[in-house]
Amino acid sequence: MGDAFDAVTDRARSRVDPDPTERERLGAVAETLIARAETAVEELPVSADVLQVGSTARNTWTSGNRDIDVFVRFPPKLSREQLERYGLRVGWEVLPDGREEFAEHPYVTGERSGFGVDIVPCFAVESAGAIQSAVDRTPFHTEYVATRLDSETAGAVRLAKGFLRGIGAYGSDLRTRGFSGYLTELLVLEYGCFRSLIESVAEWKLPVTIDPEGHGERSFDAPLVVIDPTDPERNVAAVCSERNVARLIHHARAFQDDPTVDRFVPDDPEPLSQEAMRAQLSDRETTPVAVRFDAPDLVDDQLYPQLDRSLRGLRDELDRRGFDPLRATTVANDHAVLFVECEVPARPAVERHVGPPVDAGEHASSFYEKYADSDAYGPFIDGNRYVVERSRERTSVRSVLEEQLFSIALGVDIEDALNENYEIMIGPRTATLAEEFGTEFARYFDPKP
Amino acid sequence: MGDAFDAVTDRARSRVDPDPTERERLGAVAETLIARAETAVEELPVSADVLQVGSTARNTWTSGNRDIDVFVRFPPKLSREQLERYGLRVGWEVLPDGREEFAEHPYVTGERSGFGVDIVPCFAVESAGAIQSAVDRTPFHTEYVATRLDSETAGAVRLAKGFLRGIGAYGSDLRTRGFSGYLTELLVLEYGCFRSLIESVAEWKLPVTIDPEGHGERSFDAPLVVIDPTDPERNVAAVCSERNVARLIHHARAFQDDPTVDRFVPDDPEPLSQEAMRAQLSDRETTPVAVRFDAPDLVDDQLYPQLDRSLRGLRDELDRRGFDPLRATTVANDHAVLFVECEVPARPAVERHVGPPVDAGEHASSFYEKYADSDAYGPFIDGNRYVVERSRERTSVRSVLEEQLFSIALGVDIEDALNENYEIMIGPRTATLAEEFGTEFARYFDPKP
Repeated sequence: MGDAFDAVTDRARSRVDPDPTERERLGAVAETLIARAETAVEELPVSADVLQVGSTARNTWTSGNRDIDVFVRFPPKLSREQLERYGLRVGWEVLPDGREEFAEHPYVTGERSGFGVDIVPCFAVESAGAIQSAVDRTPFHTEYVATRLDSETAGAVRLAKGFLRGIGAYGSDLRTRGFSGYLTELLVLEYGCFRSLIESVAEWKLPVTIDPEGHGERSFDAPLVVIDPTDPERNVAAVCSERNVARLIHHARAFQDDPTVDRFVPDDPEPLSQEAMRAQLSDRETTPVAVRFDAPDLVDDQLYPQLDRSLRGLRDELDRRGFDPLRATTVANDHAVLFVECEVPARPAVERHVGPPVDAGEHASSFYEKYADSDAYGPFIDGNRYVVERSRERTSVRSVLEEQLFSIALGVDIEDALNENYEIMIGPRTATLAEEFGTEFARYFDPKP
Repeated sequence: MGDAFDAVTDRARSRVDPDPTERERLGAVAETLIARAETAVEELPVSADVLQVGSTARNTWTSGNRDIDVFVRFPPKLSREQLERYGLRVGWEVLPDGREEFAEHPYVTGERSGFGVDIVPCFAVESAGAIQSAVDRTPFHTEYVATRLDSETAGAVRLAKGFLRGIGAYGSDLRTRGFSGYLTELLVLEYGCFRSLIESVAEWKLPVTIDPEGHGERSFDAPLVVIDPTDPERNVAAVCSERNVARLIHHARAFQDDPTVDRFVPDDPEPLSQEAMRAQLSDRETTPVAVRFDAPDLVDDQLYPQLDRSLRGLRDELDRRGFDPLRATTVANDHAVLFVECEVPARPAVERHVGPPVDAGEHASSFYEKYADSDAYGPFIDGNRYVVERSRERTSVRSVLEEQLFSIALGVDIEDALNENYEIMIGPRTATLAEEFGTEFARYFDPKP
């Protein structure tokens, strides 16, 4: 470490830090937006305060990732319906050319001078523990972080975000299941600087619990637990997958051993060609299977959990049937694909079925009688148990896919999509998927930590 | 039960009980043999007593199974070499046309008036616990049983032996690993009659411990423990396989439910033809493999344990390599065969290899470094662990058989035999084994309890 570490992080800073011009422009735009929002609030029959939240309010935004989040905070005694109506009214005043979107509430989103802008209504609750909707928490987070970060630690947060983005673990959306901005900020506050963050994470033994305010009251079953300083009941890292926590440890250790600026640059492989994918499958001698269908029209936070669940359902079924899945993935754009690479394409017509111990009385007798006059081989006795070899329900991966796809636990919208239409691919034919998903399969066949 | 049970056992008795003529002739022959042995003993420079032992001495021999065992019991202070010399001298006097065999000691065996005769020397030890050689126990067993059996219980022993023979579980040789004559006698003494034996065994919950003299001192790890009434340190059922104990339970329960004389008749199926075996294999869709070689010239008690060990070695290796053995058997006459039916003929060129958790410090780093620049896919991270897909050493059952047979744990004499020559068969070609082993494969493809 030492010079190399500093030299590399200096170079990384120049990638992630917004330049002074960008900063000044953002400040000026935010000021104008807030002023317009405050004017709009004055026209309402209720009082409300207007505040800037999010990374641009905390000086922790990284170059190019610059959304201005303006929250309009209403008294908690308002009904949800009133809040939404007033919130939208302010939103349209500030962004007359914006559009309405929906998260926890409907809100207005748009653009000003090249910056993305959201105007979001929330309730002015007493504390983050008393929220009425998820967004009510945000002002508490902003206040907590803003009062504790200085320009040096804010710089460390930007570096940490750049690092997490580089390794593909930044973002608490349900596709990434990585580290949110707030979580990154809390980690930097915990360890003080980027170097100390890297050194500490490299030594993490999971599960890791961090409780900045020492007020945690319950335990969480998660590899990483960061108790929200504004709400003792909440794990800020709840959405983080075990894999991403492990990946951060790996990359922290690797960066410590050999600091390079590459680790701040997302991996962007050349798309795999169909021929290359066919060659990979042929080298590996596996049995790949895929189900391809029109991706249901859902936001990523709804789509990916359903794809993951469907993939798990398919993989588990192939496993249960003895086709030994080796690896699997799901990919999506206009189409979505469940892809499983099996080790075994087929099993025999018979399967061993182990019954009860012969000395298990009634249970044993009825097993024997059930099979004595059946087509099964046996019952015979192995060790102290009855055993039969009965005919196997599914002898090939093909029959699982062709005959029982809909008996598998799929996401509900995925099932609907399959009801519309789908295509089953088995073996080398799956290589045609590289045409649409070359980058994804390039990653699949060159898997990295 | 009731009438059917009695009717069937009456018919079975007529199969197993020697008729009066056979009995008388045996008595006369035994008397002559003993007299001649006593005369021969008088010529020796040491004293010894002569006694008849075994089932013919206990009235528990079944029709057609009639060996006369004459023991010559020498003082224990004799050296083993003296015992053997004197023993053989008596043996040759009694059976001048006999031949020498070797078990615990050399002894003379031959034939008289259609009866098999053994003249065996042993030491006249104080008690069965103080034996100098295994055969020294036999006189104690004979005395214990002979003084406790009456003609009715002796009849029950003969029935029990007939039953065990019918189900193929009679004999303590290491091919059968079943019930010895002495063990059968002790079980009948324990339960009093054949019906009670059947009823009790049908209810056995393993492990079962029987200690007729209530003098057992240590515990035995066995499904059936019958403490030798003449030696508290010995389990008379030690050689009994779990499978044969379970089989006895099964057949006792089945006989109770439906008494038929068939159960006293050994199963003797029609030999399977090559065509029928080929059809079986094709129906089952398995991948059979066989190693065929000249059977080493050993007695069954040495051959079968070695065949069993070799089969286990082969089966375990095929299992370890992922070819999922479904069932296996070993058969022998002039040739011997190790036969394993696999579910999976081949696996992919890659195999998943799971490494340590990423947070396992040095251990994790060195795993990562070991594979980072290798040909393996990965390392990547699954859950919290490093994983690689490395190339598989053996991708087919054929390569296990052709390339590593001698690295498998085989019996020592089997390894020698394979060094002479052997033949590997894979797939339908194994059906040619039916030519030599049609009966054995008839049983294999119609397995019964």
